Formats: sequence, structure tokens, C-alpha cells
Amino acid sequence: MAEPIVQRVALVGAGLIGSSIARAAREYGAAREIAILDASDAVMARVREIGIADEASGDPAKALAGADLVIICTPVGVCETVAQSIAPFLETGAILSDVGSVKSAVVAQVAPHVPEGVHFIPAHPIAGTEFSGPDAGFATLFQNRWCLLTPPEDADAAAVETLGAFWTRIGAKVEAMSADHHDKVLALTSHLPHLIAYNIVGTAEDFGEQTRSEVIKFSASGFRDFTRIAASDPTMWRDIFLNNREAVLEMLGRFNEDLSALQRMIRRGDGQGLFDFFARTRAIRRSIVEQGQDTAAPDFGRRDKSA
Amino acid sequence: MAEPIVQRVALVGAGLIGSSIARAAREYGAAREIAILDASDAVMARVREIGIADEASGDPAKALAGADLVIICTPVGVCETVAQSIAPFLETGAILSDVGSVKSAVVAQVAPHVPEGVHFIPAHPIAGTEFSGPDAGFATLFQNRWCLLTPPEDADAAAVETLGAFWTRIGAKVEAMSADHHDKVLALTSHLPHLIAYNIVGTAEDFGEQTRSEVIKFSASGFRDFTRIAASDPTMWRDIFLNNREAVLEMLGRFNEDLSALQRMIRRGDGQGLFDFFARTRAIRRSIVEQGQDTAAPDFGRRDKSA
Ligand SMILES: NC(=O)c1ccc[n+]([C@@H]2O[C@H](COP(=O)([O-])OP(=O)(O)OC[C@H]3O[C@@H](n4cnc5c(N)ncnc54)[C@H](OP(=O)(O)O)[C@@H]3O)[C@@H](O)[C@H]2O)c1
Ligand SMILES: NC(=O)c1ccc[n+]([C@@H]2O[C@H](COP(=O)([O-])OP(=O)(O)OC[C@H]3O[C@@H](n4cnc5c(N)ncnc54)[C@H](OP(=O)(O)O)[C@@H]3O)[C@@H](O)[C@H]2O)c1
Repeated sequence: MAEPIVQRVALVGAGLIGSSIARAAREYGAAREIAILDASDAVMARVREIGIADEASGDPAKALAGADLVIICTPVGVCETVAQSIAPFLETGAILSDVGSVKSAVVAQVAPHVPEGVHFIPAHPIAGTEFSGPDAGFATLFQNRWCLLTPPEDADAAAVETLGAFWTRIGAKVEAMSADHHDKVLALTSHLPHLIAYNIVGTAEDFGEQTRSEVIKFSASGFRDFTRIAASDPTMWRDIFLNNREAVLEMLGRFNEDLSALQRMIRRGDGQGLFDFFARTRAIRRSIVEQGQDTAAPDFGRRDKSA
Repeated sequence: MAEPIVQRVALVGAGLIGSSIARAAREYGAAREIAILDASDAVMARVREIGIADEASGDPAKALAGADLVIICTPVGVCETVAQSIAPFLETGAILSDVGSVKSAVVAQVAPHVPEGVHFIPAHPIAGTEFSGPDAGFATLFQNRWCLLTPPEDADAAAVETLGAFWTRIGAKVEAMSADHHDKVLALTSHLPHLIAYNIVGTAEDFGEQTRSEVIKFSASGFRDFTRIAASDPTMWRDIFLNNREAVLEMLGRFNEDLSALQRMIRRGDGQGLFDFFARTRAIRRSIVEQGQDTAAPDFGRRDKSA
């Protein structure tokens, strides 16, 4: 196997993302040693049980000693606390990164606590599932997925390169952009879709028991596609909406304008308008499939219990 | 194999649904003979090529002769024309049914043309994919899916029973309800989700080329889940929205109210409100999976090209 990219990666937070990085780093030889540090004793115990780290004592000094790459993998809302608590243990020359789904707010909260000589390069892997915790992770999660780096303008070029090489080694395609641009794009591709999915499932919830049970029964007609992402972790998503407020509200405004137009077409019985609207959205699906970001199989290639 | 439920089923329209019924009827022995009649010469030619029907001459008199079950499987918008054109060939005692995704409007359009002595029992299988045409169909499409019958109050009990037995034989679970109730429930479980999906993909479309290409690249963060149903057939969906206007507009009103509430929580930074909202939507997903209406595998068990 090729030389490891870093000597020791320390992952702070061992949920879906942190534990997937640990598994992938070992599987693809991206780090010589893997340390995990999680605030939860239960998570640390589980990490030791499944053996995905070389250092899992739960002691920050031990976890961070010799770590040339430290990645914060906790919910966005605790990034500042985490940065504060690990700062004393960060070694000069180390790279500090994160995986948060929003970037400008994380930078604002973490950057002030980064010691001189430590290179803070934020990142966000565009990969995940609707499940959480150390058992949800798997080594191939990042394969063929993008990982966005949002290095500050004065970032150390070698540090950016090392971080990019680490993500490339564990399967990701790497691209750099500003934190601001990241937050706008993700507001549209990720935050708005999750908000809409949560909302439509919530609308169904609001009805009485009978309607709810019918919605569940007949969900294969469309509804069930929304329930997957609306089953994502509430803490993670609360933090995202609190920390990317402006971009999300802007996208939501655009969405609402378009929806009003569709509503008007339905009310007026504008068949041609509806047909035209529905016809132009197919091209995007085709491109997503062509670029390997989704499967072309009908119904996502789902295997139902029954099949 | 058990005795066939009917002697000859004639399917008018051989797209995804019609061709799936044909395949399933043969696979599970639901009909002794299968006739297909489609308005399109190309579709008829393809039907003969793939050999999914015993009678595929394209001649209505031949297709409907001896058919004790006739199912209209065309888009909803042409149901009336189809009913008119096949009426002269329907045999006394035959069952006439359909598979339209809306029911009250279909009843209003078809019922006036049904000859005396023919039993009109509308139906709607809650099963489908985002693909269309005779090649998209498959025999197992209806396995473990619901098929809703909306018999009129004075319907012939034996005819309802035969139609139910036919759907049961090809794998569906059958339930009866009024056309009106059907249209309300489906507005929520199917029509609103499709409208929202079309709308969010449309919102992304509205942005310039650069944003569009980023949305496609980073779609694995949530957006891609919506693009599947937004790639469904535009004709079919135009017809559904034109023919279930009131119920859809009502559900859309409810959706908009809920969305305003979420929007307000984001603007005010109401973390507890967001958390509570996001926490209550998981139960519905769990029930859908438990009832075998979706897979529990992460990401719908998608297989990416890369994996
Ligand atoms: N899930 C996705 O699809 C996805 C995709 C891309 C990026 N992200 C980002 O990745 C990050 C983590 O998400 P995830 O899905 O991996 O979440 P997760 O499965 O819930 O894992 C988060 C872990 O962090 C731990 N933690 C919480 N506070 C901590 C602290 N102060 N110090 C150390 N550990 C702490 C949690 O422990 P407890 O269990 O005790 O809370 C939990 O084990 C988030 O910032 C999210 O925005 C997620
Ligand atoms: N797709 C789903 O997920 C789904 C699920 C449940 C119910 N449904 C309902 O099933 C029905 C059919 O949907 P589908 O997905 O099977 O559509 P489809 O794949 O587009 O097939 C419709 C077929 O009907 C043909 N047709 C059009 N006008 C006709 C006419 N006057 N006489 C005979 N054939 C005609 C079409 O021919 P051309 O190709 O020449 O137009 C086409 O072959 C719709 O009412 C829909 O609401 C669909």
C-alpha cells in the first residue's frame, strides 16, 4: 500500500462521519495511527468494542499527542466548545479541520481558538446517510463523493494539499471554494431539501391518526421518498438551520415564489404551463445519474422487503 | 397454478402500468388471455416484439372480443376519449376498470359512456416508478403494494370481488374507499410530494449555469432524492393536477402554513422549536419501513456506479 498521508489522525466525535473516516483511514492506509475522542462514554466504549481506533482512551492529551491531523466531527453547534477544549493539546504544525455541513459559522466559532502555528482548514464531505452514531459508519461512505475544502485566503498551501490528499486517499473528489460560496450552494442542494422534506412529513403528521395511517400505507406513491431525509438527526439539522440562516431563508424565498407560480397554474387549469414546468426538470436528473451521483435504477434500486 | 381469475383481460394503453399488468397477469396466471390495445403504432409494434400479449393486432374489435375484464391504462386526460372509443366493443357482463391516479374526475368522464350491463369499477394501484413506456414495466411491480378500488355505491358485488381477486393474484393488497376520499389521501401522499419535488428542482433550474452544475455535483447532500420523482412523466402529472385541483390546492395550503412556521423559527433562531419539529417526523419513516413500504437500508440501499 502507498505511504500514509499523515502519521496520526485524531477524530473528535465518532458518529456517522467520524467513525466512517476512522474506518476509511484504516482501510485505505491514509494514516499510520487513528485516535478517537468522543464526549460520550457510551460512544467511547463502543469505539473500543468495534476496534476502529488505535487510541481510544478518552483522554484528550493521549488522543491528540502526535496528531498531525485533527478533524472535528461533532454537531456544528458544539464546534466552539470542542475547539476551546482541544486547543491546549494541539501540536505546532498540525492541521485542524472539521466536517461541518455549514462553513462560515464554524469558521467564526473555531478560528479564534486555534493556537498560533496550527493550520485551520475547514472541510465538508458531501456524503452521509440518514443514520447516526459509530455503528452507522462504513469505510466506503466517501467513495466518489465530493469533499469541499474552504481554506482561508492566507492558508498554508502545504497544509491544504495534505488535507486534500487525505480525503482523496479515502475515496473523495476534492474541490476548494470560499466558505460563503459553500454555504449558498449547500443551502440549495442540501438545507432547503431537508427543510422541505421535514415540512411535508410534518404536514402529514398534523392530520389525525386515520390520515396518518393512510399516508404510511400508501406512501409508495411518492411520500416515502421524502421520509428518508426527514428521518435525519434533529440535533444536526437544528444546528445547520441556526448556523446558515440567511442563505437558507434566501433559498426558501425563491422556492416559495416558484411554488406560488405552480399554485396559480393549477388554480387556473393552465395545462400547458404545468407540462412545460414538469418537462424541464428531467435534464437535471439525467445529469446527476451521468455524473455518478445517483443510480439510474428505477426507484433508486430499492429492494423492498417483499421483493 | 390456480385457475385464472378472468378469461381475457384487455389492457388499453401499454405503458409502465399497462405493460406491467400484462406481464404480471401472465406470470401469475391471472387471465387465460391477454389483449393489448394502444393508440400508438410504435407501442403496438414494441408489444408484439416483446411478446407480452396474446392479442396485439391494434384492432379494438379483436382486442375487446371476449374480454371479461377491460382496464384503461392511458393517461388520465384521455380517459374520456378512450371510454367513448371502446364503448361499442364492450361485452355485456364485462368489468371495465382503470388505473388512473385520480378517481373522481375519471368517474365523471368515463361513467357516462359505459354501456348498460357493463360494470364500471375504478381502481388505482399505488405502485410505479419514474419511467414510462412498455419497456419500463415488470411483473413484480405490484407485489406488496396497495391497489385501491373505488366502486360506486350501487356497484355489482361480484364484479368488485372479481376485480379485487385479479389484483390480489398479481401481488397487490386490495382496499376499497370512495373516489372522493381516495383523491384527498392521494393529494397528500402523492400529488403534493410530486409538486414539491418538481418545484425544488425547478428552483435549482432557475439559477444560472454555474449554480446548476454545482447542484448536480453536490446533489448527494439531499437534493438528488427529489430529482427521482421530478423526472416522472410530464403528461401524466399535468393530467393529475388538472383533475384533482381542489384536493391538491387544499393540501398545498396546509403545507404552506407549516412552512411559514418553520421559516419563522429559523428567522428567530428558535432552536428548541426546530429540534422538536425535526424530532417528530422520524416515527413516520419507522412505520413505513415496518409496514414493508420502503427499505430500511441507508440511502434507500442505492448502489452508486462507483460502489
Ligand atoms: N450525517 C450526515 O449526513 C453528514 C454529512 C456531512 C457532514 N456532516 C457533519 O458531520 C458532523 C457530525 O455528523 P454525524 O452525522 O457524524 O453526527 P453523529 O452521528 O450524531 O455523531 C456526532 C458525535 O459527536 C459526539 N459529540 C457531541 N458533542 C461532543 C463534544 N463536545 N466532544 C466530542 N464529541 C462530541 C456525539 O456524541 P453524543 O452521541 O454523546 O452526542 C456523537 O458521537 C456534523 O457537523 C454534520 O454537520 C454530517
Ligand atoms: N407511473 C406511475 O407511477 C403510475 C402509478 C399508478 C397509476 N398510474 C396511472 O396509470 C396511467 C398510465 O400511466 P403510465 O405510467 O403507465 O403511463 P405511460 O407509460 O406513459 O403509458 C401510457 C400509454 O397509454 C398510451 N395512450 C395514450 N393515449 C391513448 C389512447 N387514446 N388509447 C390508447 N392508448 C393511449 C400511450 O401511448 P403514447 O406513448 O403514444 O402516448 C402510452 O403507451 C395513468 O393514468 C396514471 O395516472 C401511473
